Amino acid sequence: MRFDVLVEVSLRPGIADPQGSTIERALPSLGFDRIEAVHVGKAIRFIMEAPDEHSARGTVEELCKRFLTNPVIEDASITITAS
Amino acid sequence: MRFDVLVEVSLRPGIADPQGSTIERALPSLGFDRIEAVHVGKAIRFIMEAPDEHSARGTVEELCKRFLTNPVIEDASITITAS
Repeated sequence: MRFDVLVEVSLRPGIADPQGSTIERALPSLGFDRIEAVHVGKAIRFIMEAPDEHSARGTVEELCKRFLTNPVIEDASITITAS
Repeated sequence: MRFDVLVEVSLRPGIADPQGSTIERALPSLGFDRIEAVHVGKAIRFIMEAPDEHSARGTVEELCKRFLTNPVIEDASITITAS
């Protein structure tokens, strides 16, 4: 089966997020003044082959731990949909 | 009302995605060989105040056009949930 996978990589709570802070600081001068808690992460999308969704999730979790994220400072949220 | 907003910024079709290509090229040597079409984008999350979801979406669309994306090479996909 083929699956569409989205891995959202975000900085863990407490880790400085300079991109998010810069966006947040710039917004009021552009006229957007009711926005807060801006965080910038990565959205990694790919297509994978796997026998079923359970094994697809296992592979993606291993991939995140070994390669896509730095688990010391980043969290990964995985969304898998059959395609 | 308060809304949780996710803006996923992705490169438009046909625009070179060197981060995605690099990940894709590295995967087979790590033992992940059934993954293709890797694309890397940005996931921007924030909280906003707006009278209703319709006006929240309008504000976020304007924000994307003016500030968060480069519309020549990037697309934005917006997800809004009441918080």
